[in-house]
Amino acid sequence: MAANTLGKLFRVTNYGESHGPAIGAVIDGCPPGLALSEADIQVELDRRRPGTSRHVTQRQEPDQVEILSGVYQGKTTGTPISLLIRNTDARSKDYGNIVDTFRPGHADYAYWRKYGIRDPRGGGRSSARLTAPTVAAGAIAKKWLAEKYGVKIRGYMSQLGPIVIPFQSWEHVSNNPFYAPNADVVPELEAYMDALRKEGDSIGARIEVVAENVPAGLGEPIYARMDAEIAYAMMGLNAVKGVEIGAGFESVSQRGSEHGDAITPTGFESNHAGGILGGITTGQHIEVSLAIKPTSSIRIKRPSINTEGEPVEVQTLGRHDPCVGIRATPIAESLLAIVIMDQLLRQRAQCADHWLRPGEN
Amino acid sequence: MAANTLGKLFRVTNYGESHGPAIGAVIDGCPPGLALSEADIQVELDRRRPGTSRHVTQRQEPDQVEILSGVYQGKTTGTPISLLIRNTDARSKDYGNIVDTFRPGHADYAYWRKYGIRDPRGGGRSSARLTAPTVAAGAIAKKWLAEKYGVKIRGYMSQLGPIVIPFQSWEHVSNNPFYAPNADVVPELEAYMDALRKEGDSIGARIEVVAENVPAGLGEPIYARMDAEIAYAMMGLNAVKGVEIGAGFESVSQRGSEHGDAITPTGFESNHAGGILGGITTGQHIEVSLAIKPTSSIRIKRPSINTEGEPVEVQTLGRHDPCVGIRATPIAESLLAIVIMDQLLRQRAQCADHWLRPGEN
Amino acid sequence: MAANTLGKLFRVTNYGESHGPAIGAVIDGCPPGLALSEADIQVELDRRRPGTSRHVTQRQEPDQVEILSGVYQGKTTGTPISLLIRNTDARSKDYGNIVDTFRPGHADYAYWRKYGIRDPRGGGRSSARLTAPTVAAGAIAKKWLAEKYGVKIRGYMSQLGPIVIPFQSWEHVSNNPFYAPNADVVPELEAYMDALRKEGDSIGARIEVVAENVPAGLGEPIYARMDAEIAYAMMGLNAVKGVEIGAGFESVSQRGSEHGDAITPTGFESNHAGGILGGITTGQHIEVSLAIKPTSSIRIKRPSINTEGEPVEVQTLGRHDPCVGIRATPIAESLLAIVIMDQLLRQRAQCADHWLRPGEN
Amino acid sequence: MAANTLGKLFRVTNYGESHGPAIGAVIDGCPPGLALSEADIQVELDRRRPGTSRHVTQRQEPDQVEILSGVYQGKTTGTPISLLIRNTDARSKDYGNIVDTFRPGHADYAYWRKYGIRDPRGGGRSSARLTAPTVAAGAIAKKWLAEKYGVKIRGYMSQLGPIVIPFQSWEHVSNNPFYAPNADVVPELEAYMDALRKEGDSIGARIEVVAENVPAGLGEPIYARMDAEIAYAMMGLNAVKGVEIGAGFESVSQRGSEHGDAITPTGFESNHAGGILGGITTGQHIEVSLAIKPTSSIRIKRPSINTEGEPVEVQTLGRHDPCVGIRATPIAESLLAIVIMDQLLRQRAQCADHWLRPGEN
Repeated sequence: MAANTLGKLFRVTNYGESHGPAIGAVIDGCPPGLALSEADIQVELDRRRPGTSRHVTQRQEPDQVEILSGVYQGKTTGTPISLLIRNTDARSKDYGNIVDTFRPGHADYAYWRKYGIRDPRGGGRSSARLTAPTVAAGAIAKKWLAEKYGVKIRGYMSQLGPIVIPFQSWEHVSNNPFYAPNADVVPELEAYMDALRKEGDSIGARIEVVAENVPAGLGEPIYARMDAEIAYAMMGLNAVKGVEIGAGFESVSQRGSEHGDAITPTGFESNHAGGILGGITTGQHIEVSLAIKPTSSIRIKRPSINTEGEPVEVQTLGRHDPCVGIRATPIAESLLAIVIMDQLLRQRAQCADHWLRPGEN
Repeated sequence: MAANTLGKLFRVTNYGESHGPAIGAVIDGCPPGLALSEADIQVELDRRRPGTSRHVTQRQEPDQVEILSGVYQGKTTGTPISLLIRNTDARSKDYGNIVDTFRPGHADYAYWRKYGIRDPRGGGRSSARLTAPTVAAGAIAKKWLAEKYGVKIRGYMSQLGPIVIPFQSWEHVSNNPFYAPNADVVPELEAYMDALRKEGDSIGARIEVVAENVPAGLGEPIYARMDAEIAYAMMGLNAVKGVEIGAGFESVSQRGSEHGDAITPTGFESNHAGGILGGITTGQHIEVSLAIKPTSSIRIKRPSINTEGEPVEVQTLGRHDPCVGIRATPIAESLLAIVIMDQLLRQRAQCADHWLRPGEN
Repeated sequence: MAANTLGKLFRVTNYGESHGPAIGAVIDGCPPGLALSEADIQVELDRRRPGTSRHVTQRQEPDQVEILSGVYQGKTTGTPISLLIRNTDARSKDYGNIVDTFRPGHADYAYWRKYGIRDPRGGGRSSARLTAPTVAAGAIAKKWLAEKYGVKIRGYMSQLGPIVIPFQSWEHVSNNPFYAPNADVVPELEAYMDALRKEGDSIGARIEVVAENVPAGLGEPIYARMDAEIAYAMMGLNAVKGVEIGAGFESVSQRGSEHGDAITPTGFESNHAGGILGGITTGQHIEVSLAIKPTSSIRIKRPSINTEGEPVEVQTLGRHDPCVGIRATPIAESLLAIVIMDQLLRQRAQCADHWLRPGEN
Repeated sequence: MAANTLGKLFRVTNYGESHGPAIGAVIDGCPPGLALSEADIQVELDRRRPGTSRHVTQRQEPDQVEILSGVYQGKTTGTPISLLIRNTDARSKDYGNIVDTFRPGHADYAYWRKYGIRDPRGGGRSSARLTAPTVAAGAIAKKWLAEKYGVKIRGYMSQLGPIVIPFQSWEHVSNNPFYAPNADVVPELEAYMDALRKEGDSIGARIEVVAENVPAGLGEPIYARMDAEIAYAMMGLNAVKGVEIGAGFESVSQRGSEHGDAITPTGFESNHAGGILGGITTGQHIEVSLAIKPTSSIRIKRPSINTEGEPVEVQTLGRHDPCVGIRATPIAESLLAIVIMDQLLRQRAQCADHWLRPGEN
């Protein structure tokens, strides 16, 4: 649980500021022998990249990743993998007005109280830009999990502000800028976002992430449970205010006779558990749901204070996502991949004497 | 993020099984000089103890704590504090029928897949009984936080199954067996639980926990955020399926102009953030909400399988809480105390050069 | 590798004070399915126990271990193993004179500077008594390593003060109170110790520990090397002032053409490396050497100060080992076992895709 | 203390290979507000740099460091500091002959056994080149310790092969390529190295490191002792085979009446303890001694095997240090600085309630 490191055996250390020279991650503990190229990582970074539709920030960042270490002749060597992403489109002048004032709902006030100093350019380290190294690291976890254990991780947006998005099919998800699993609702989402942008306001969203083919037996029963570590990773993502596993808050009004998933010789009959019982995976799909708050950087004027404690009105111009939830899906997938891979390595360590490798049972 | 250890600098290592000789915790990293007696811990254990009303398990456990180390002449010495609680009322025969079958919704299936072996007596390590050492450790964190920083942590039940419990006053909380902050709703809760017990079913609940006077500046911005560590601790508690900070899932449909808490020279005008921005405390109350699923051990027969994979009907007799949420409040308070104390120690380490001690500013 | 915890995946958390109610350890991360009884642990504790010859402290402690958790029907379950050892022969009055004064060479001064408070009874937490929980934990690691990987760990004394003890045979080691691998030198050791005891002085010693059949490939190359973690564990043992791997300080005057162990198709021709190259095991024996300083608690009067900073003469009566090195051999073996087991689990986690289980290659 | 990370609160994560695109480190946990520039780091890197005399490797690496994050307007912000050093002089052809054979005494055999794959170019990750990021990180620790607590850390060579180097004065150390604290012995060292280079052989060395003004009270008493963590860091340095604190192996033949440093109202009368008692600093100088083995890459032919297990003769041409000990002094200083700073932050966390800040007592 080190500050800027996620994971215990598959460890992702994240660094960088929005408008500094570069951002990046060092991934320690990756198994050797995995085929890995920059292209494998770039494809996930491109899914998260800004500037890809009119509904997200217009900052133009190629987010080109460079592998600095840990890969030799196209394969991981087991040593740390250092990933570097240079910042190229950092217009710090856009942010001049936030140096001495605090945006309501933004981290800048909290950073100032914590460190007594902060890099205000583009939100510094609190910028959503810092999710790019997480996505890059997650691309490695996703690839290893898929190749070695057949695990498949994907997500979608299930609600944008007041608009609930019914699940139709996974195939829609990559065909619209919202990661919506429903083709019919897209025009409504477009119209909503266009109106919102005109008003200079922002909106929240709800994201679902699902992991399939996760082996049973992953997770450690007290404290370091699989669900606890998923909640840790997800709540550690910018703007997330709530996390659910399986039935989530619906469990509050469920009875035991309804909630407990019946088991048959061919499997479970439902998945209120979200794939996890007692903190340990059961072999069912892991299902996670996230609440993402609206962006705090908005054009609408809000009452606040400056660093002297005096009242001010704050209006954030610059380039911002009116709904950070739109780009959150690939990030949440990455976080889930990192957590599952980390727990899987831990399971191999402790239980390899009886827990089988893929294909052995 | 070690398996059975919570915290990084204030570290709680939990051990034990429901029907083994004892359960307990070792707390490492407690500051020296804190006045501490067994009575200080017992008072919190008594709040969580089974057998205190007809609505909870009738197991009779005194949960008498013994301090084995780390305290000399009534004060902590800075060395590990070992807390021992002997199990006294362990009727393993009650659980004979669960040795070879799996309860739907229960951890026993997952344990069996993970370890290939499990202690089935009373749920073994997955028993809610193992929250007692957490509560004991939390008592120490609560006391230190209160004495050194004036932090006050308390919780209540806000919903039991379908019954929403409107907040009236903190003073009601300790006057009913449900930790309900509302005197009027208690008869309805009693009636609901009595009916449920007759049916042999169980029900979920929603718990709120609030920490007041938490200093601003606690939490580490990427990954090890304060909200992430709270989510980790809470989701690591038996039966929790969802965690919210501040506005939680309501944020999904909020606009930025509504969600972002306006700041004035005298403080914040609202607390949708739940006391945390960018993963760091702001000095507002920390507000956390938990969804607790219904107990999986119920008298109603459910379809399941045995360890041979054959279909069986499972009915759990024994002594069980029909709503584990009822005893969850003191546990959630303890978890929040441990997380805050741990982050506070980390903040002192990194930022002591400018961050002030209590009373210095 | 937190304060009082040794190991990363096989984690030993040590607690207790010399004259408190009890000492013990919680071992987290032990693989499930290992046959384990209290007798398996007791046999190692008995090797370290005080009062077994006239050359060690006359404190009479049975050091009876109780397993409180983590074992069910004679097998480990994968959950934390809590080991409890009650203190029974704690004559605190013997130590009355050290409450306000500091023994030269003893930890009590340092504790006082660190914590501002200390438990002076019997040296409190700095007592060599706290090596008992380490030995108990090491017994588990030794047993698992032996059963699963055929690893054999044993040690001996190679020097006692000025007397160098030439290695004759392992079979002598258990036949004298010094762990000397040489029958002929025992009378000289006895005479030396008898004279020393009369003078009220103490003496240092040198201990060798050897691990055989350690699989190649254990250790992580930068920082967390196998040799680094061995040095950490050994230097963390009371009274150790030096650690060598393989040729150790002799390497200083060796040439590369001499030091580098030649390799042939049937193995290495020498073992200056001590079984470790680049921080990773090679499959050769791991060879470690320790320097143990003389006990600081002696009957001879020494100049010191009291807690007020005033000059005093300090003489330590009570019951003390005149040579802590005599009982150090089983402790050093235990530490080596814990480190190897921990690294072996880490190797399984990261490299299980190609690194074979015993018997598979 | 994960694989490639040193430190618990001041955490240095090291990455890179000798002939990959770059090497570097991410430093997490540095206190905010420290004035820091690339020049502050470069000065230490230049002390370690190759190619500065005829006695070290002729590889020409400017080792130019770039700060990628964590510094704003010349001050640390408390967020991770990413340091990048590009590799520029990587002549991989020099190493063609080591791809399929193992150098006696070199890590390449162990890497191959561990990972089943390795980057052989220039020794890959096992190259001494990877000490550069450690030195860069140590420069930050040194600067902070000096400015906030007045700690001064420096080292010297006390023996080169058979030549013991008597300490004359610190001022000589920077005036010769050996870090020898003695002007008179330099010609002898030069002649010895010139002869050795002609023979194509290599030699060991002994290095001393001293830290002055270290506050009393640093270190955690069981396992994570100050001496244990120093030993861990030093033994984790390439080619180190032995570590001593204070009297080290001389303690073996010392009596307690001699070894225990007498205390007077004005301080200690000797320093056999090397500044550490019971794992905790006493306020005396910390004194550490290292044994460094001779380089394994030598021109003299040695018997070995290839990856097929067949016998071969290995001769290493390329550019190598004939005595890695020559450049070890700044690295050992850096490691000591990192360990002390890390422990100091931990002490502030746990004991800030009574342990004073500089200038407060």
